[in-house]
Amino acid sequence: MRTRQAVLVAAAQVIGERGYEAATIAEIIHRAQVTKGALYFHFPSKDALARAVIAEQTEMLVPPPSDSRLQDVIDFSHQVAQALRDDPVLQAGTRIAVETTFSREPLVPYQDWIEIVTRMFTEARERGELLSAVNPAKAAEFVVSSYMGVQLFSQATTNRADLHERVTSLWRHILPGLAPPGALSHLTPSGRWERHAA
Amino acid sequence: MRTRQAVLVAAAQVIGERGYEAATIAEIIHRAQVTKGALYFHFPSKDALARAVIAEQTEMLVPPPSDSRLQDVIDFSHQVAQALRDDPVLQAGTRIAVETTFSREPLVPYQDWIEIVTRMFTEARERGELLSAVNPAKAAEFVVSSYMGVQLFSQATTNRADLHERVTSLWRHILPGLAPPGALSHLTPSGRWERHAA
Repeated sequence: MRTRQAVLVAAAQVIGERGYEAATIAEIIHRAQVTKGALYFHFPSKDALARAVIAEQTEMLVPPPSDSRLQDVIDFSHQVAQALRDDPVLQAGTRIAVETTFSREPLVPYQDWIEIVTRMFTEARERGELLSAVNPAKAAEFVVSSYMGVQLFSQATTNRADLHERVTSLWRHILPGLAPPGALSHLTPSGRWERHAA
Repeated sequence: MRTRQAVLVAAAQVIGERGYEAATIAEIIHRAQVTKGALYFHFPSKDALARAVIAEQTEMLVPPPSDSRLQDVIDFSHQVAQALRDDPVLQAGTRIAVETTFSREPLVPYQDWIEIVTRMFTEARERGELLSAVNPAKAAEFVVSSYMGVQLFSQATTNRADLHERVTSLWRHILPGLAPPGALSHLTPSGRWERHAA
C-alpha cells in the first residue's frame, strides 16, 4: 500500500508540473523511487493511473448529517475548495479530468461527486429543505458542473486564492432556486466550518 | 485579411486536433497554405495567434434589446451554445482557454463575455428586471464561470450533443436568484430563438 500511495503522489506531482499528456511513466517511476514492476503491479497503464488519481478525490469524507443537510452540502463544497488549494493529488485529478475532456475518451470528471451531492440533496428533500420543483439528481449535476467552471476561473485568475469567495458567490446565486425563501436566512453560503489559515 | 482568416481557421483546426501545446506553427502554415512570413506578419508568436483565436469568440453579435433584457441574455447563451457546437474557431478558443488554465501565464478565458453579460445585466437592472440584491458584475462572472463548467461536462459526456439541455438547466437553477418571483413565469430558460436542426 505504501508503494501505491508513493506512486499516486509522484504521479500527481509530475502531472501537476507537466500536464497529463506530457507526463511519462518513466518520470513517475523515478520520482516515486519504485521499480517499473512495482508500478505496473498496481497500475497496468497510464490510463489506469490517471483513473486512480481521479478516484482519490472521493476518498474525502461526506459530512455526517447536521441539523441542515443543505448546509452540509455547502460546507462540503468549501472543504473540497480547501483541498483543491492544498492537496496535489486532488489538483492533479482535476487537471487530468479537464485536459482529457478534449481527447477521444474523456475520463468523465467528478462522477463520484455528482453521486455524493445527489444523495445529500435527496436527504435534504426528504427533510423538506428543498423546493418541491427541485430534482436532486439534476440539481447535483448542475451544481458540480458549475463548481468545475468556478474553480477553473479561480485557478486561471488567482491560482485559486479567491476560490472560497467564488464558491460563496455560487451558493448565493443558486440557493434561491433550491430552498424556500424562509429557509435562506438560516443558510450560510460561505460555509460553517473553520478554515485553516491561507 | 483573407490570409489572416485562413490562418485563424487553420490554427483552430490544428489546435482542435492536437491541443494547444502540441500544435505547431509549421503545421498551421502548411494547413493554411500561406508563407511563414505572411503568418508572422499577422501573428508574431503562437501566443499572439492563440489570443486572436480566443478574441474571435467575441465577434459574435450581442442581441439587440427586446422587451426583456434578461431573456436576451438567456437567448444569447443558447446562441453561444449553438456556435460551440458548429464553429471550429470557437471550439479551439475554448480549448486554448481551458488548456492554458494550468500553465504559468493562463490566457484568462471569456473576459469579453463577462463584460458583455455584465452590460446586459446592468441594462436589465435599470429596467427593474433583477432582484435588488443582485450585483450585475458578480452575477455575470458567476454565470459565465458556471457556463464554462457546464459546457465542459457536456463536451466530456456527449460531445456537446446535450449542451442546450444543460444550458436550460443552468437557467432554471439560477433565474430564481436573479429575477423577482412574478417575472419567472415570463422567462423561457430554453431560449426564444429558432435553432438549426442538430
